[in-house]
Amino acid sequence: MKKEILEVFDNTYPDRNYTIEIVNPEFTSVCPKTGLPDFGTITVHYVPDRTCVELKSLKYYFLEFRNAGIFYENITNRILDDLVAAMQPRSITVTTKWKARGGITETVTASHTAQG
Amino acid sequence: MKKEILEVFDNTYPDRNYTIEIVNPEFTSVCPKTGLPDFGTITVHYVPDRTCVELKSLKYYFLEFRNAGIFYENITNRILDDLVAAMQPRSITVTTKWKARGGITETVTASHTAQG
Amino acid sequence: MKKEILEVFDNTYPDRNYTIEIVNPEFTSVCPKTGLPDFGTITVHYVPDRTCVELKSLKYYFLEFRNAGIFYENITNRILDDLVAAMQPRSITVTTKWKARGGITETVTASHTAQG
Amino acid sequence: MKKEILEVFDNTYPDRNYTIEIVNPEFTSVCPKTGLPDFGTITVHYVPDRTCVELKSLKYYFLEFRNAGIFYENITNRILDDLVAAMQPRSITVTTKWKARGGITETVTASHTAQG
Amino acid sequence: MKKEILEVFDNTYPDRNYTIEIVNPEFTSVCPKTGLPDFGTITVHYVPDRTCVELKSLKYYFLEFRNAGIFYENITNRILDDLVAAMQPRSITVTTKWKARGGITETVTASHTAQG
Amino acid sequence: MKKEILEVFDNTYPDRNYTIEIVNPEFTSVCPKTGLPDFGTITVHYVPDRTCVELKSLKYYFLEFRNAGIFYENITNRILDDLVAAMQPRSITVTTKWKARGGITETVTASHTAQG
Amino acid sequence: MKKEILEVFDNTYPDRNYTIEIVNPEFTSVCPKTGLPDFGTITVHYVPDRTCVELKSLKYYFLEFRNAGIFYENITNRILDDLVAAMQPRSITVTTKWKARGGITETVTASHTAQG
Amino acid sequence: MKKEILEVFDNTYPDRNYTIEIVNPEFTSVCPKTGLPDFGTITVHYVPDRTCVELKSLKYYFLEFRNAGIFYENITNRILDDLVAAMQPRSITVTTKWKARGGITETVTASHTAQG
Amino acid sequence: MKKEILEVFDNTYPDRNYTIEIVNPEFTSVCPKTGLPDFGTITVHYVPDRTCVELKSLKYYFLEFRNAGIFYENITNRILDDLVAAMQPRSITVTTKWKARGGITETVTASHTAQG
Amino acid sequence: MKKEILEVFDNTYPDRNYTIEIVNPEFTSVCPKTGLPDFGTITVHYVPDRTCVELKSLKYYFLEFRNAGIFYENITNRILDDLVAAMQPRSITVTTKWKARGGITETVTASHTAQG
Repeated sequence: MKKEILEVFDNTYPDRNYTIEIVNPEFTSVCPKTGLPDFGTITVHYVPDRTCVELKSLKYYFLEFRNAGIFYENITNRILDDLVAAMQPRSITVTTKWKARGGITETVTASHTAQG
Repeated sequence: MKKEILEVFDNTYPDRNYTIEIVNPEFTSVCPKTGLPDFGTITVHYVPDRTCVELKSLKYYFLEFRNAGIFYENITNRILDDLVAAMQPRSITVTTKWKARGGITETVTASHTAQG
Repeated sequence: MKKEILEVFDNTYPDRNYTIEIVNPEFTSVCPKTGLPDFGTITVHYVPDRTCVELKSLKYYFLEFRNAGIFYENITNRILDDLVAAMQPRSITVTTKWKARGGITETVTASHTAQG
Repeated sequence: MKKEILEVFDNTYPDRNYTIEIVNPEFTSVCPKTGLPDFGTITVHYVPDRTCVELKSLKYYFLEFRNAGIFYENITNRILDDLVAAMQPRSITVTTKWKARGGITETVTASHTAQG
Repeated sequence: MKKEILEVFDNTYPDRNYTIEIVNPEFTSVCPKTGLPDFGTITVHYVPDRTCVELKSLKYYFLEFRNAGIFYENITNRILDDLVAAMQPRSITVTTKWKARGGITETVTASHTAQG
Repeated sequence: MKKEILEVFDNTYPDRNYTIEIVNPEFTSVCPKTGLPDFGTITVHYVPDRTCVELKSLKYYFLEFRNAGIFYENITNRILDDLVAAMQPRSITVTTKWKARGGITETVTASHTAQG
Repeated sequence: MKKEILEVFDNTYPDRNYTIEIVNPEFTSVCPKTGLPDFGTITVHYVPDRTCVELKSLKYYFLEFRNAGIFYENITNRILDDLVAAMQPRSITVTTKWKARGGITETVTASHTAQG
Repeated sequence: MKKEILEVFDNTYPDRNYTIEIVNPEFTSVCPKTGLPDFGTITVHYVPDRTCVELKSLKYYFLEFRNAGIFYENITNRILDDLVAAMQPRSITVTTKWKARGGITETVTASHTAQG
Repeated sequence: MKKEILEVFDNTYPDRNYTIEIVNPEFTSVCPKTGLPDFGTITVHYVPDRTCVELKSLKYYFLEFRNAGIFYENITNRILDDLVAAMQPRSITVTTKWKARGGITETVTASHTAQG
Repeated sequence: MKKEILEVFDNTYPDRNYTIEIVNPEFTSVCPKTGLPDFGTITVHYVPDRTCVELKSLKYYFLEFRNAGIFYENITNRILDDLVAAMQPRSITVTTKWKARGGITETVTASHTAQG
């Protein structure tokens, strides 16, 4: 996962707190235990500060996980950390919701708020 | 986009705080990068002060974006600014929810509250 | 619209704050501009004080609007005022949600709380 | 309606505040005005104290209303009072949602909280 | 029910409060009164502290209830206690939602928060 | 069950084969084994010949089953026979779909076509 | 009901059998028995021959029923007859689906095929 | 699986071909490979001849599979054979629809028609 | 509308009759009467012969209608004719389903089968 | 794509024509033009002859497409050919339904029937 793939552009309305929600229902990675693919939906909800994440670069960033073996909890926190590093938003929440395995589904949600 | 298209009419019940929500699921504009059309749903939720926005003029105002190249975030904030200028509501929220591109959807929400 | 149509009956449990929600998805009136019918759903949500509104009389009251030309915002506030006058509830909210015209839908919500 | 039908059993976890929600979508009674049957869904949501209501006895209690003529508001408050008397919960809410009559639906919600 | 079946793994992000929600719609146990099977959906929602529960072991833990006779309220509190003992989360909620019996459904929700 | 309750009116368009479908989702009867109520949805679909069944009388006819103990299969065939006797339709189908008992639902469908 | 309101326009593709389906979920008329309004959805499905019905004139034609007292079966056959007279389609089906009255809904379907 | 558990009762309307559909969404058995439980919905659709299957005995018959290790295809054909043997219906279809395993769901459908 | 925009590619499996269905829910054109935009969903269902239509070129072909004034029936037949000319499929159906105007929706369906 | 991955097991009921439907909503491959991933749902519906396809081997077979660049039409026909070769079913249909690209979705359906 190269977080350098993430590109940002200038927020044209930095004086206003507003929210951007991005949903990617076509996320896939690999289970590190079984080597079998996992499928999930990633939701990113944030209040931009100086920059916004560019959608196409975000799509390519997500593609980096396609053949990577990584646990649900770690993907979620990793994406959160990478997006915080890339655009330093005022606040951000990342949610990953996974398709059932053995009849059981899991959803992980992690947030970050900039220090005042 | 000529915001002068927006017409308002007198609020008959200015002594009461009440809300008006307008939903337009037939909004379309053009992506400034690719030149391809974007499709979305615009929701305007506001508490009127002295005036309300006239629905037909709002429809024509939205049509002005049909062949305009403009980013999701800018459309949202632009519509918010134009509606604030046209009717100075007590409070207002504009939400734009876009159809998927490359499998990814985006929703932008911006609000404004009148200074007491 | 004759608000005298509204009948009330005694609230048997005046010592308890409880809520009554009434939904009428079969409301129709006439657009004062075009003369064409509008269709909507009226929701009344209230906490009764001494009296409750009788459902059949409420139905006949709603029928009074069938051939009346009146705007969305005014219908909503008018129904609210008439119900407040008829039964003086502890609190009440009236919501009108209208079928799309020109692809655009509108919902109006107005509330009233009795003075302590 | 004989509230003596209601049976309770000891709450095994009285030291913990937890909630129990019971939904009966097969409730029917009789309209005292028309003699025609009404159909509704009863929801009971409560935090038990020393006892919980036994489900089978609750079912038989609900059956007592099958041929009784009683108004929506009174059924709701009556069920609430009977359940409070039977098990003295820490808090309880009873909601009754009725099928449409004359195109209009009604929902009644009443709550009780034990005195500290 | 042997709670020793539950395995945990180290939380890689203990400095951040984040949530994990696990849903198992394929839970079954036996009614202690009738001996007939009950079917339900178990939802576990928690904020991990030092450890997270391992999904496969949780699945095997749930299987232990397959032929056990136990009441709805007790299952819910028992699962909560076992998960608290196994991983001492910062906070946790267990919800069990049961398929209808005699036309009536029940949902039980119990929570635990670690002492600061 | 007195089938004499069923009233008919003259079919104004006897030269045309057309269909009438009537759905009553508020049907209830009593299980002859347990004495407990059953709940179901009755659908009547027919091509009228000389007469159509009057809706209000049909409603009262259905009410006759409210406290009658009768099996699913027999109710269905009985209603079919009574409607055939009352209005001699060109063809008719009666479907009864019952709410779950012990987790199991049943639907019964019976038809009759007039002899040419 | 003046069927002269119906206007037609020339079918540009008369050499091809193709279908047009028109759905109007905002139909209302009056029950001749009770004087109370009925609400329904009208569906017209046809294969045009030389002409197609003009949508706006069809809307005004439907409005003629707004304050007319007429039974479900008669409305359906009447609309069918008027549309056949106005545009002589190769085949046509009219379906009217009515909102519940006394908990019971009715749907009427009538068809006409041109003589070869 | 003891098919002797299945009980039948006399069909009161043997002169009419009519259908009975029974749906059990709470079926569970065990995968013979992994020993883990499978969950599915069983649908039985049949035209009775001299007898109908008694619902409660069918429920107990289904329970016999709870701890049995048997493949999807074999369960389906086995249930079909047992029901044919028990009541010799004019025709019968058994469908089993299984919850996802490894993200993949399977549905098996088998039919039998009596020899004329 | 330049149908030359449509590109085709060789069907790799010409010996087999198989179907391809393409759905575009983001179609927009202009009403020739009012100059206002129409919005609809286009579905193309065909059995290819020697060639298949290339998806990207189809998208650009659909975009040609964005600012064209053309009636529902004509768009449908026009698209059908253009696709038949471009790829001469064994059979093809084009369906256009339009968003409501004045509360009324229309769907047009036209088909073509190659002469044996 | 190595079709040798596909394993079969003996059909225990070869004397009966019955159907097996397998749905995999977690299929992904790569677009040969753009190199970007495609996501789809694969449905296989067949009547077995001597053998049935083993589910786990089918899952591994589907995984072979994960990083392969192949068009929608070719995947569909390829899977059909491989399954026919592996188990020679009496009849089989393969359907692939793809997530939207550029707002457009495609579904491909191909069938094969064994020669009598």
